[in-house]
This record gives sequence, structure tokens and C-alpha cells, in this order.
Amino acid sequence: MTVCFGEILLRLSPPGSYRILQADSFEAVYGGAETNAALALCGFGDPASVVTRLPDNEIGRACLGAVRRWGADTSRILTGDGRMGIYFLEKGASLRPSKVIYDRRDSAFARSEPGMYDWESILRGADAFFFTGITPALSDALPGIVGDALAVCRSRGIPVFCDVNYRPTLWSTERAGEVMRSLARGIDTLIVNEEHAALLFGVTGEGGDQEARLESAARRLAEEYGVRRVALTLRLSESSEINTVSGVLWDGERMLRSRDYRVPIVDRVGGGDAFSAGLIHGTLRGWDSARTLEFASAANALKHSVHGDFLVAAEDEVSRLASSDGTVRMIR
Amino acid sequence: MTVCFGEILLRLSPPGSYRILQADSFEAVYGGAETNAALALCGFGDPASVVTRLPDNEIGRACLGAVRRWGADTSRILTGDGRMGIYFLEKGASLRPSKVIYDRRDSAFARSEPGMYDWESILRGADAFFFTGITPALSDALPGIVGDALAVCRSRGIPVFCDVNYRPTLWSTERAGEVMRSLARGIDTLIVNEEHAALLFGVTGEGGDQEARLESAARRLAEEYGVRRVALTLRLSESSEINTVSGVLWDGERMLRSRDYRVPIVDRVGGGDAFSAGLIHGTLRGWDSARTLEFASAANALKHSVHGDFLVAAEDEVSRLASSDGTVRMIR
Amino acid sequence: MTVCFGEILLRLSPPGSYRILQADSFEAVYGGAETNAALALCGFGDPASVVTRLPDNEIGRACLGAVRRWGADTSRILTGDGRMGIYFLEKGASLRPSKVIYDRRDSAFARSEPGMYDWESILRGADAFFFTGITPALSDALPGIVGDALAVCRSRGIPVFCDVNYRPTLWSTERAGEVMRSLARGIDTLIVNEEHAALLFGVTGEGGDQEARLESAARRLAEEYGVRRVALTLRLSESSEINTVSGVLWDGERMLRSRDYRVPIVDRVGGGDAFSAGLIHGTLRGWDSARTLEFASAANALKHSVHGDFLVAAEDEVSRLASSDGTVRMIR
Amino acid sequence: MTVCFGEILLRLSPPGSYRILQADSFEAVYGGAETNAALALCGFGDPASVVTRLPDNEIGRACLGAVRRWGADTSRILTGDGRMGIYFLEKGASLRPSKVIYDRRDSAFARSEPGMYDWESILRGADAFFFTGITPALSDALPGIVGDALAVCRSRGIPVFCDVNYRPTLWSTERAGEVMRSLARGIDTLIVNEEHAALLFGVTGEGGDQEARLESAARRLAEEYGVRRVALTLRLSESSEINTVSGVLWDGERMLRSRDYRVPIVDRVGGGDAFSAGLIHGTLRGWDSARTLEFASAANALKHSVHGDFLVAAEDEVSRLASSDGTVRMIR
Amino acid sequence: MTVCFGEILLRLSPPGSYRILQADSFEAVYGGAETNAALALCGFGDPASVVTRLPDNEIGRACLGAVRRWGADTSRILTGDGRMGIYFLEKGASLRPSKVIYDRRDSAFARSEPGMYDWESILRGADAFFFTGITPALSDALPGIVGDALAVCRSRGIPVFCDVNYRPTLWSTERAGEVMRSLARGIDTLIVNEEHAALLFGVTGEGGDQEARLESAARRLAEEYGVRRVALTLRLSESSEINTVSGVLWDGERMLRSRDYRVPIVDRVGGGDAFSAGLIHGTLRGWDSARTLEFASAANALKHSVHGDFLVAAEDEVSRLASSDGTVRMIR
Amino acid sequence: MTVCFGEILLRLSPPGSYRILQADSFEAVYGGAETNAALALCGFGDPASVVTRLPDNEIGRACLGAVRRWGADTSRILTGDGRMGIYFLEKGASLRPSKVIYDRRDSAFARSEPGMYDWESILRGADAFFFTGITPALSDALPGIVGDALAVCRSRGIPVFCDVNYRPTLWSTERAGEVMRSLARGIDTLIVNEEHAALLFGVTGEGGDQEARLESAARRLAEEYGVRRVALTLRLSESSEINTVSGVLWDGERMLRSRDYRVPIVDRVGGGDAFSAGLIHGTLRGWDSARTLEFASAANALKHSVHGDFLVAAEDEVSRLASSDGTVRMIR
Repeated sequence: MTVCFGEILLRLSPPGSYRILQADSFEAVYGGAETNAALALCGFGDPASVVTRLPDNEIGRACLGAVRRWGADTSRILTGDGRMGIYFLEKGASLRPSKVIYDRRDSAFARSEPGMYDWESILRGADAFFFTGITPALSDALPGIVGDALAVCRSRGIPVFCDVNYRPTLWSTERAGEVMRSLARGIDTLIVNEEHAALLFGVTGEGGDQEARLESAARRLAEEYGVRRVALTLRLSESSEINTVSGVLWDGERMLRSRDYRVPIVDRVGGGDAFSAGLIHGTLRGWDSARTLEFASAANALKHSVHGDFLVAAEDEVSRLASSDGTVRMIR
Repeated sequence: MTVCFGEILLRLSPPGSYRILQADSFEAVYGGAETNAALALCGFGDPASVVTRLPDNEIGRACLGAVRRWGADTSRILTGDGRMGIYFLEKGASLRPSKVIYDRRDSAFARSEPGMYDWESILRGADAFFFTGITPALSDALPGIVGDALAVCRSRGIPVFCDVNYRPTLWSTERAGEVMRSLARGIDTLIVNEEHAALLFGVTGEGGDQEARLESAARRLAEEYGVRRVALTLRLSESSEINTVSGVLWDGERMLRSRDYRVPIVDRVGGGDAFSAGLIHGTLRGWDSARTLEFASAANALKHSVHGDFLVAAEDEVSRLASSDGTVRMIR
Repeated sequence: MTVCFGEILLRLSPPGSYRILQADSFEAVYGGAETNAALALCGFGDPASVVTRLPDNEIGRACLGAVRRWGADTSRILTGDGRMGIYFLEKGASLRPSKVIYDRRDSAFARSEPGMYDWESILRGADAFFFTGITPALSDALPGIVGDALAVCRSRGIPVFCDVNYRPTLWSTERAGEVMRSLARGIDTLIVNEEHAALLFGVTGEGGDQEARLESAARRLAEEYGVRRVALTLRLSESSEINTVSGVLWDGERMLRSRDYRVPIVDRVGGGDAFSAGLIHGTLRGWDSARTLEFASAANALKHSVHGDFLVAAEDEVSRLASSDGTVRMIR
Repeated sequence: MTVCFGEILLRLSPPGSYRILQADSFEAVYGGAETNAALALCGFGDPASVVTRLPDNEIGRACLGAVRRWGADTSRILTGDGRMGIYFLEKGASLRPSKVIYDRRDSAFARSEPGMYDWESILRGADAFFFTGITPALSDALPGIVGDALAVCRSRGIPVFCDVNYRPTLWSTERAGEVMRSLARGIDTLIVNEEHAALLFGVTGEGGDQEARLESAARRLAEEYGVRRVALTLRLSESSEINTVSGVLWDGERMLRSRDYRVPIVDRVGGGDAFSAGLIHGTLRGWDSARTLEFASAANALKHSVHGDFLVAAEDEVSRLASSDGTVRMIR
Repeated sequence: MTVCFGEILLRLSPPGSYRILQADSFEAVYGGAETNAALALCGFGDPASVVTRLPDNEIGRACLGAVRRWGADTSRILTGDGRMGIYFLEKGASLRPSKVIYDRRDSAFARSEPGMYDWESILRGADAFFFTGITPALSDALPGIVGDALAVCRSRGIPVFCDVNYRPTLWSTERAGEVMRSLARGIDTLIVNEEHAALLFGVTGEGGDQEARLESAARRLAEEYGVRRVALTLRLSESSEINTVSGVLWDGERMLRSRDYRVPIVDRVGGGDAFSAGLIHGTLRGWDSARTLEFASAANALKHSVHGDFLVAAEDEVSRLASSDGTVRMIR
Repeated sequence: MTVCFGEILLRLSPPGSYRILQADSFEAVYGGAETNAALALCGFGDPASVVTRLPDNEIGRACLGAVRRWGADTSRILTGDGRMGIYFLEKGASLRPSKVIYDRRDSAFARSEPGMYDWESILRGADAFFFTGITPALSDALPGIVGDALAVCRSRGIPVFCDVNYRPTLWSTERAGEVMRSLARGIDTLIVNEEHAALLFGVTGEGGDQEARLESAARRLAEEYGVRRVALTLRLSESSEINTVSGVLWDGERMLRSRDYRVPIVDRVGGGDAFSAGLIHGTLRGWDSARTLEFASAANALKHSVHGDFLVAAEDEVSRLASSDGTVRMIR
């Protein structure tokens, strides 16, 4: 069981490639980085539990049903006062970029208080714990709540996966750096890009090319914070409709880079979360670093073909893509 | 020009008669009691101006376009920080009632501050001013802002229409009573039901039947608060699909009651706002009380046939219903 | 084979009960009084042929496919210059009436010219001929073209069914009367209401109640124009959502009236055309007057449950309604 | 935990009130009598487990997600060879009845074999067991499988609820009678109508009016088969859009009849299953017979307002209807 | 008239690029290899007749209407017991392949019995006969029924087109080889790929490159089975959204290869059937091999731009593409 | 305020990439070259006024609302007899070109008569005037009406922008040339391609490459007709889904060419009108030629990402594209 801790948002997006200014309706899906990873894991056949706090109204209950539908455990979800966080997504098209408008203040999750989550009980039997840097950014209390969870993980030997995912609109660089550095010591696998490693952890890679720089930054994160592995997704945006994505993993010894996927985009939200889920999945399965990274990258690539915030795919679909020669044949 | 002052909400409702728990998309319309009245007035051919404060983002701009589409003046709308208030509407069906979930806290409108609205300029050339009891309920500052507007109306002789529309979830009876009583002296036409007249104004009608009680309550409102006219809509809910509606007007002299309309319901939100618009319209046209009331009641009835928060109908459509014999013939 | 001669229009209507002013899309169906009757006949299992003239473009071809789909013969349809006639239908709801906006001028059908239709060939093997008063109203040439068809019918003994369906927006009472009177001598079964019988044929019924008046008018139509039978649908409009319909038939001897159907309305367009189809069907099957009339009235009633301009129903569905006790049970 | 055993079908129905002949798409929901009851119970807050057998393909997995969404336990669902049973539903409208076309042969469930279901384990901790007469009708093996379940129920004292729901298209009266009589001895609460009681159990009520006849039939079912309670829903079909429904319960002593609900219909499928769920719910809550029956009848009535095969409603929504005075007010 | 013999399936596919696991509705179209070719021929202006067997229910009748809509003759279609075969299509997107789930067992067509089809009458006046290898795979009786048709074709000199289209899920290689070899002697134009030529006909091409191998395989098919022409489509799948397609034709003398089309994909189902229709069309028109092949390849390419199972295009649209320079200009 | 004079059409297009022959509904938007430019200007923050003549019915009023929604002034729009012009748009896909069917004859705008438009009043305070060559093509009276407007522009010094946009289906080359030459003397900025410059103005460029030829043609247009600037969009159509667009501007001194944009296409209608709006915007802002041209070309490119006839984008969105390095990043 992988325990994923974070906020779930109601995502509202105009149909097709309409702009928000043109919309007379919104498609509704529920997602959030940690939940996206949990649901992708369920698709791969791994048990996962979403831990969050939802408003005690019909919107919260609709969210609960949406999570349950994909097979995640919801028995540890709290409900209470506060609203459902919302984000509006205008999907990009052609040369027009996607646009996100957040409306997440004062959510039930952001009202989480110390002691609300009984981590001893929640983490009983957990194989892994996943959170992103968004979670501690959402309130003053949340860094402490995450810290409590990490303490239990440490005492139980539960590996912690963290995607730094720094959002400057949520908190200042100073505060984010302070919090993330304090949490880093509990993290096994850190997903972070070069810029955020420098900004938040003061860790700048050296070397001529990107991979060399990343490797040196990863080594320094390991030395300074005890992180065991560092991973990262790379993305090149040709248009709003075609990107090229890949992934990088430093496994404590070697620097690995996955193949590149040139992906037409149906929905690019949540690619990184599918990558995280892929890393967790490969780790739990005991795969070697190369196989794990290729699986995670294929999961990221495949996510772009699926509507909504999270990957809907079985393990064999991801594996087939990871090992394909690039042709895409109909399956009968 | 009728100036209408209040909040506009983004209304999100599941398609058809789906429940929120079943919804994968939401239909989006923008409305609010005062805006609903303004847009209905535009349909009748009367100029109307919506005065509100919207967030300075794409949702706010979408709302602006929606208001403009129906012909209301939007040049006096402010934009700024804060979010768009939202409400989720689950339309009732059969024996299942409609359900509303409000998510309107911290809206750009609720962040209105004293002095933001330049009433001298806004009310230049105004024929009427309309607000509901929801407006002063939304923040501590708003009663004062409404009071400022009423002061300008008084000095210019602009008649004020107010629909009390007391919402206990927004403010306490004490606070509402205090505020509404202090505003009442500036009101020409007050729309209020028996229960709220008692609760907020301490005015209880006497007499055997409903009309007698209403008349006596209206007289007391006139005596104590200087209100010139008192009006009211009546509704009998047979099912979520059929209601019977009518209206009552005490015009300072006589108590009038409109005919009853038994209305199958397409969308019952905003019936009262259409009634208010009808009262304003008849008043501005100089119609007598009976014609004004019948028009307002027909506007209320006709609203139930129109999707969204506000009536979309021309004056002659409302008049035709007000004078019809009950048969409904196709118009070619 | 019943040959049906008239114009087909593209009908554009807002989805659900939206008003035209609110519509961002239109549902498209193709229909016209005569075609509606033809397609209903196909549903009953009777061969029918639509004779019309369509524009030689994709809209015309889309119309052709729509007619073909329901089983009518389209091999006698002409194509050529001119446009597709259009009508916009705003479906009524609650107390709001349906509204029709015609945009049919200059259609390919209205450009029909004398001699274009080879009636000798078209009517080979025909069992019945159907047209409505709309057809000769559409151009100066069309009365003559209809007259040519009637001449061939007379020479072959093909019974002619005509629904007078007078539309004052299409032609003047004088012109309509002149034309319809000249065509009446070729008509076997005339469908006409009391008002139009008076206006166009100068035939006013006498007697106390409606049925007596209708019977006396029918007798005079028979005497003066040689019409064998006169029929009529009756409708009482309680709201845009519930009507009560029935039918009347004077079969040359007796006056018959069908049962009343109180019908909730899905789509009321084309009820009269379904009635005409029912009369034709019963006549071709050789049923007696009572059975024919009850079938025609049930077809009219059942049409109100079907989207679009024409009845989609099998003979046994209509018969089952005609003989039902009023309860409506699920069919498994 | 209530264990519900039966087949789930993929239901395909044209959008709105379109006929199948007009449909270009089908709305898809998953349902089946026993599953409908389970999901309604989840809505009431009762744990429920669906026991069935699904095809091991994406349709089966989609069904699994649909059941999970509403909160039922799916951990005891088997998967294997065979197809997903389908039924096409054309919703009635106006005077046109609903129509169902079954395409359920050779389903994965119908391929259930003796011994596949480990009832000892499945029924561990169960509070109630529910099945309908459809389940044993679906194969030669299923009566025995149901019998195995009843045996375990008897040994554990788990009360069994059975809705006879005889479908002559699935099996002959002889076979159905033989099977149902053999199963009846294990049933605590039998839901059966007068006609099926006579056909399958040879039990004919006596007495002047319906209630007297039902009571006498119920007494005989109790005497002859050891059934403790007998219940029934009544329905009067005014049109496809309005029915009047109620319920009857003989609780071993008294004959009770619930109030009548006149219900406009959104979707009438599954009303009986909601009634069954209501009976189970009241029984598990320990309510008295009157309260249980009123709750069950209100659940049946409320189901008509909800799209799909099963009731989506919380306990308090049903209770509110059961105790309402008939007016339906918006809930804010 | 080209007679096309085979099964029609109801295809159900999620809207847009949704996955089946996400679908709440399915778009419905009717198609099957032979019917697809027939409807494409109708678009080209060639008469075509679909010969099949449909269930005698509303689904079968809906299918009949769908075929009729596009202009094919349906007068030779049988109806009877059995169900409508179904297939679920999940359209691929980006790097995610399309997926098909068949649910076609026990269909009305698969229940076809010897003697049911009166080939003497059906093939009266036929110009060509088309079937694919799917047809004889569907039951034990169908190879014989196809053989009966081929016998009549031979006696009348009607050219037979056959697309081998081997589906290993429908029958074994042994059985398929045996049947297809026995039918091959009646075939004029055989559409088969290299792999299936080897598997079923034991014919392996020799030579260095693909075209040489195909030519040698074609020559051997001609020698051993008397086939006059051999054709083939080639496809390179860059992603689920872009393929490159072309075609090859050995006309008894020369090996021809069409230009390549790089096609963005709207719907790739039925490309091969459009190719077959193009071959038939060119042959019936008497075009030379090069023109015929280019037309067939353009038809294949153009099919990818059209939703559903079959090409909707006029002859001139295909010809324009076949002779275009690659730029695609708006047509006004 | 930019005054834009021309016809607005109701555009009806099948959903998604359906063909007209497959359509059961049409998406409705309102547009026309001049209105498209006006609405794009409103998006950029420039006031714009649409001057046209609409039918006095619900379709005309719906159009009015659509224009108002985007912020254009509609106070100078006339209403009267005549119909709404319509065009059907089948969007291309893959290798299938877009197709337009016009149905615009006899529109309210085409019935415009001399003197109907009070240009002195309409152009009060105008900064620019825009029309296209479609406007004078629509009736015999319209060239004179345009001429009247140009005369007022000249007397007031209002710069005139004209996109020649020659449509041979609307008028003959002779008539178009005669009219456009007579109007050219009043035009400041002429948008015209090489072919139309030759056809209508008899101006053929000389020189080896395209730019040299265009420059020489532009110089001759300036010399002969007094035009100050000449501009042009270029387009290369790779498929119906990808085009490459750019723009050219001769500013009286230099020939400038914008960067190329390779644009995946959502909706290509109105690209040229967005380009015109961009030219007007840059000119009114007082930008230099290079910046103006790059903005106009980016507006053209960005239009391809937006559904409907006109660009919906803010100035900063266009500027960001104009100065981007080609990567398209999500905006949070």
C-alpha cells in the first residue's frame, strides 16, 4: 500500500479546445498531484491509499466517489469544514498555451490541523509514502503534519518519495526552501529539477552538459540531505499539441536517462505524477534502475494520451510502450 | 437606467436532472439576484446597469461577457482581487427538491470597500435603484456602501426597490434586522414575505386570512419605515416540476393579488428577481398597480420556463401571458 | 405506394428547452408536412415516395439521406438550383409557447417549374397521393403543378388526401381560396378545420355544438366540391407541455369522433401529419371509418412523444395505444 | 454488510427521450436488481457487497469501477470468461411506453459454476443477503448456487430478502415455480405480487378488496413456506411521465400500506430495487414495520427522480420525503 | 450493382479520446468490412447492395436505417433470431493504441443457414461481388454459403473481390487456410498481405525487397489459385495520430505502387474497406490499373479523415486527393 | 473607436470533424470578416463598433447578443426586413479540405439602401474604418454606401483599412475591379494578394522572387491609387491540420516579412481578419511597422487555435507569441 498525502482539487475545464471566455460548461474531474499518483498506481495493480481532507458536502462526496472508482482506498480520508479547492484549466491548442487559474484558498485540506491525521494508524502496513512540495505549501500547519508523517515513516522504514514541484504562487522561495530542506532528510527518492534544486536546496550542479550538471547536483543532494536517489522529467514544448518528454534518474551510483518520447498531447496535466507513480511502482516491484526509469518515463508519456489529471492504464500497457519500437498498432 | 447593485455568482449545475454525485460536467451560467433583475429589464427594453466587483481574471471576464451579451451596461463594474463566488445547483426533479451549495466566501465583491463605488457618478441619470438583502449580508462594509448609494438616491429622488430575501446562512437575524431596518427608510418599494417582515422588521400582520395579514403588515411597514409599497411572491410547490405562483402588491392604498399561474418548471431560480424586474418595469412605464402586478407575476411565471438564473423574454411575451386565457399556442 | 408531394425544410432547434437567444448550437432534422406523412407511413409498413426538389449541394444530400434512412423512396426527388428552406423552431416549455421562424424563400422546391415533374411516371403504381395547402402556396407555378398531379390521379383513380393547413403568412386568403377551391374537386379526403373551411371554401357549418357544425360544413364541402370525406384534428393547449388531442371524421355518412388523448409533449410538430398518415394507412388497409379514425388519432397523440417532425412508430405501437386503457406499461 | 448476489448488466439507452431508431449514441450505466439494492444501501450509509461474476476485459473493469464509485465492496467479485450482459433501454415519454431489449445470453455471470462462490467466506460477517428471482433464472447451475448461499445464511442466521421479480422471458412458469418454491423456505422477507404468488407459489389470496386478498395470500405464504414477511410495491401508470406508487407490507401480524406518491418520472428503472433496499435498511436499523415500509416506499418514489438503475440518495433525503407534507422546497 | 456479403456490427466507442474505463456514453455506428465497402461505393455513385442477416428487433431496424441512409440497397437483407454483434472501439490517441473488444458471438448473421440466401435472385444484375475472410470465419455454415455465392458468380461471370483479412481470434490458421484456399479459385481480385499469403495459402514471395517479394507471391497466387489480381494496403504507424499509407496492385502483369499519404487520423477503422471499394470502383469504371490503384489508395487515405467505419466521400473528392500536390485548400 | 462595416453571417458547422452528411446538429457562431476584426480589436482592448443591418427577429437578436458579449458597440446596428445570411462550414480534417456552402442571398444587410447609414453620425469620434471587398459585392447599392463612408473618412482624416478578399462567386472580376478601383483612392492600408492585385487593379509585380514582386506591386498600387501601405498574409497548407502562416507589409518605404508560424489548426476561419485587426491595433498604438506586422502575424497564427470566426485573445497573449522562442509553456 502506497500512502499519498495531499490536496484534491475539482478541476473545471471548458470542453474540447474552447477558451474559458467561450465556455458554457465545464468538464469536471478531481485530481491533485498525490492523488494522481495513487490512482495511477491502482491502474498498475498496486494498492494505494489517498489521505486528504474533504468538505462535508456533495462536492466532497462526489470527489470521494471519483477516487473510489479508480480503486484507491478512501477509508483514511477526513471530512470537515472548509470548501473544495478548485482550479480552472484552459487546455492549450496549437500555439496557444494551457492556462490554469487556481481557486484553492480556504479549502478543507488547507484547514488540516496538527493531530488530525493519526499517522501511526494511517501508515500501518504502508510500503511507501508519497507527497509533493505543494502539500506543505498550503498552510502553516501542513509542514509540521508532513513532518509527523515522515517521522513515522522513518521509524518504520517506509521509503518516502517526494516531488518538489515548487510553486512560487503558493509560497516564497525562502519559506519553501526552509521547509523543504527540513523535510529532505526523511526522503528516499527526490524528484526535483535543476532550477528548484538551486533555489530551494542551494545545490547547483557543475559540468558542461545538462546530464553532468544534474548528476553533480544529485550527488550533492545525497551528501547534504541523505537523499538516496534523485529523479527528474524533461520536457520540450514544440507546440501545445506536441511535446517531447523523457526522464532522468540518479540511483546513487549512476546517472540514467530514458528514451525520448515525442507525444501528441490529449491532456498534459499529471505527466509528472504518472512519472512518480512509475518510479514507486518499479521500486516496489524491485526492478533495477534502468527498467524502473523506462517504465516511469513511459507512464509519463502515456499520460499525455489520457483525459483528466491522472494516468488510466494497466501495467502491461505502460510496459508495452516502454519496449515498443515506436509503431502504434491497433489491439484487437 | 435602472442601477442594480450586488454580487454575481458563477452557477455550476449538472446537466439535465443529474445529481451532483453523478455529474461529470457542469453547465455554467452567471447570475445573482440584482443582475438577474437587470438582465430581465434589458429583455423588456429598459436600460439597466449592473454594478458589482469582479475578479481580474478570465472567470471575471467571462462573467462580464455574459452580462454584456444580454445588453446590460457593464461600464461601472469594478475589477480587482478576490475570487469569483460560486454556487452549485442541483436541479430538483419529481419529488426530489433542488439543492444549492454556496461557495461564495472571499469573493471580489465581498472585498468591496467603502469609497470604492463612486455613487454620485454611478447614479447619474438613473431612474431606479435595485438591491436585495443579500448584498449587505456579504461583508461588514457592504451595509455602509449600500447606505451611501441610498443617500444619493434620496438626494436625487431615485426610487429604490429592495427585495429583502433574508438568508439565515449569511447573517444572523439580529444583524440582518438591524441593517435592514436602518436601510428601510430609503426604500420606495419593499419586497418581503410575512415571515421576514416579522423577523427583521418586527412587523406582524393581523387578520384572519393571509391577504388581510399581509395588508396590515404592509401598512405598518409604511407607517414605521416610510416604505411606499410592499410586494411579495407566493409559491405552492406541488412537486419539483410543478409549482403554482402568484404575486401580491400593496400600493399604499389597496391590496392587490395577481392571478395564479400553475407552472411546469424548467428552472425555478430567479423567479423572484423576474418579479422585481416586472415591478420596476411597470413602475417606470407608469402603469397602474394592477397592470404592474400582473406583469410582474407573469414575469415570475415565465421565468420558470427559461434555463439559467434570469428571465429571457421580451415585454410583449410577458404581456401576452399576463392577458392570456391559459391556452398556449405555437407562434409562427 | 403513397406519393407525397411537398417541400422539405431543414429544421434547426436549440437543444432541450433553450431559447434561440441562448442557443450555441442547433439540432438539425429534416421535415415537411408531406414528407412527415410519408415517413410515418413507412413506419407503419406502407411504401411511400417523397416527391420534392432539393438543392444540389451537401445540405440537399444530407436531407436525401435523412429521408432514405426511414425507408421512403427517394428515386423521384429532383435536385437543382436554389437553396434549402430552413425553419428555426424554439420549443415551448411551461407557459412559454413554441415559436417558429421561417426562412424558406427562394428554395429549390419553390423554384419548381411546370413540366419538371413527370406525373405519369411518378404516379405509376401509386395507391394514394398526399399534399397539403402549403405546397401550392410556395410559388405561382406550384398550383398548376399540383393540378397536373391531380389530373393524373383522377385518370388513374388514385385517391387524393389533402390537408388544407392554411398559412396566412404564405399567401393571401383570396389567392389561397381561389387555388384550393380549384384543386378541391380532385380531392377524396379533405382535412380542414372549421375556420379554414369558412375562409377558403366559404362553407360555414350550422348547428349548436361543434360536431353538428362540423358535420354540416362537411356535407356542404361534399356537395359543392365532391369531396368524399372530411377530417380534422382537435387540440386543447393546457400548457406548452400538456395538450389534449383528438380527431373527427365525417365519412360521407356519419360523423365520428375519436377518444381524447391527454398528451405530455416532447415535440408537437407534425401531429397533424401523423394524423393524415393514419387516415391514409387505415384507408389503404381497408379498415372501417371508426378504426381508421382511432388509429389516426392515436398516431397524432403518439407523435407528441417523438423528437423531430415525424412519427417514428410501428403500426402495432399505434394500434396498442388506440386500444389501451390509458395505463402505460414498460415493454420487456 | 448486506451481500447482494446477481448479474450486472451494461445498460445502453438513447439520450433524452430519443427512440432507439433515432439514436446515434447511448448513455451507459451499469446495473442489475441486486446491485441496485446494494448501491442504494451504500447511499443510506449501510455497507454492502456486490457478489457477481464479470468478464475479464475493459467492459468488466469499467463496471467494477462504476460499482466501486458508489461505495460497495467489490472484493468478492469474480472475473472470468463470458461476455458482459447488455440491455437496451428506450425510455418512454408521454403516452409511449419504455421498451427494453435484453442481450444478456452467455454472460460471465450466467457461466457461474457450482463451487465458484465460497459462501462460507463471502457471508462472513454479513447482516443480510439479497437476491431476486432473476438470479436463479439465468442458468441451470444458478438455482443450486443460490441454494448454497441460503444454506449458509440459515446456518448463520442471516436474514434473506428476495424479490421474486418473475420474468417469463427468462424461464418457464413451471421451472420458475419449482425453483422459487424450493428456495422459499430459506427466505425471511419475500417481495412478490399477487399474480406471481399465484403463478409460482400456487397461493391465491381471498377477500373482496386488494389488501384483503394480499393479506390472505401473505398468510398462506407464511404458513406454507415459512416466510416471515411479505411485501409488495404498487404502481399506477397514468402516462410514461407520471405514475403513482406505494407499498404494502405484511409483517406477520398486520397488513400495512404506505402513503401514495404521485411521481413525475425521470427514470423508472430500479424503483422496486430501491424499495427492497429500503426494507433491508429499516430492518437492519431495527425500525418498526410502519417506519420501515414508509421509508421503503419513499425510496421507491425518490428513485423515479434519479437517472440510472439505482437510487442515489442519502438516508435523510428519503426520510424527509417520507415525512413531508407534499411540498417540495429548495434546500439551500 | 455490387453485392457485398458479410456481418454488420454495432460499434460502440467512447466519445473523443476517452478510454472505455472513463466512458459514460458510447457513440454508436454500424459497420462491417463488406458494408463499409458498399457504403463507400454508394458515395462514389455506384449502386451497392448489402446482404446480411439482422436481428428482428429495434437494434436490427436501427442498423437497417443506418445502411439505407447512405444509399445502399437493403431489400435483400434477412431478419431473424439471434442478436446484433457488437464491438467496442477505444480510439487510440498519442502513443496509446486503439483497442477493440469483440462481442459478436451468436449473432443473427452467424446463425445464417445453408439455403437462406437465394443467390440466384440476389445476384441478378450484379456487376461485382465482395466479401472478406471474416465472413466464412463466423460459423461452420458460412464457408458453404459463400461457396454457393461464388458458384453463381462464376456461372454469371460476376467478378469476385475478396479481402482475406485473417483474424486469428475468429478461427485457426488451419481452418482458415483450408476454407480460403477452397474459395480462392472463385476470386478475381484478392487483397492479402504477405504474412497471410504465407500462412493461409502457403505462398511465400521471394526477392530482396518488399515489392519483389509481393510480386513473386502474387504470381504464385495467380498460378496456383487462378487469381487474376492481387492487391494490398501498406501502413506505417508513427503514432496513434499519424500513419503513412499506400497501396500495391499486381494486375497480372505489372507490380504497381501508389503514392504515400501521410495522414493525421480521425478514425482509422475501415481504411482497407475503402481501398477495396476504390478497387471495385475503378474496375467497374474500366480505369487502367494505375488510375484504379491511385484512386483506391486515396480512398484509403481519405477514410482516415472520416468518423465511423466507412468512407463518406464523393468520387470527385477522392480523385482530387489522388491528383493533388499535397496542399489542402478550403473549398468555397 | 474602429468602425467595421459589413455583413454578419450565422455560421453552422457540424460538431468536431463530422461531415455535413453525418451531422445531426450544428454549432452556431456569428461572424463576418469585418465583425471578426472588430471583436479581435475588443480583445486587444480597443473600442470597436460593428455597423451592419440585421433581421428583426430572434436570429438577428441572438446575433446582436453574440457581438455584444465580446464588447463591441452595437448601438449603430440597424434592423429591418430580410433574412440572416447563413454559411455552412464543414471543417476539414487530415487530408480532407474544409468546405463552405454559402446561403446568404437576400439578407437584411444585402437589402441595405443608400441613406440608411448616417455616416456623419456613425463615424463621429472614429479612429479607423475597416471594410473588406465582400461588403460592396453583396448588392448594387453597397458600393455607393461604402463610398459614402469613405468620403466622410476622408473629410475627417480617419484612416481606412481594406482587405480586398475577392470572392469570384459573389461578383465578376470586371465589376469587382471597377468597384474596388473606385474605392481604392480612399484607402490607407490595403490588404491584397498578388493574384487579386493583378486581377482587380491591373497591377502586376515584377522581380525574381515573391517578395520583390510584391514590393513592386505595392509601389504601383501606391502610385496609381494613393494607397499608403500594402499588406498580405501568406499560407502554406501541409494538411487540413497544419499550415504555415506569415505576413508581409510594405509600409511605403520598406518591405517587411514576419516570422513563419507553423500552426496546428483548431479553426482556420478568420485568420486574415485577425491579421487586419493586428494591423489596425499596431497602427492605433503608434507602433513601428516591424512591431505592427509581427503582432498582426502572431494574431493570425493565434486565431488558428480558437474556435469560431474571430480571435479571442488579449493583447499580451498575442505579444507573448510574437516574441516567443517557439516553446509553449503552461501558464499558471
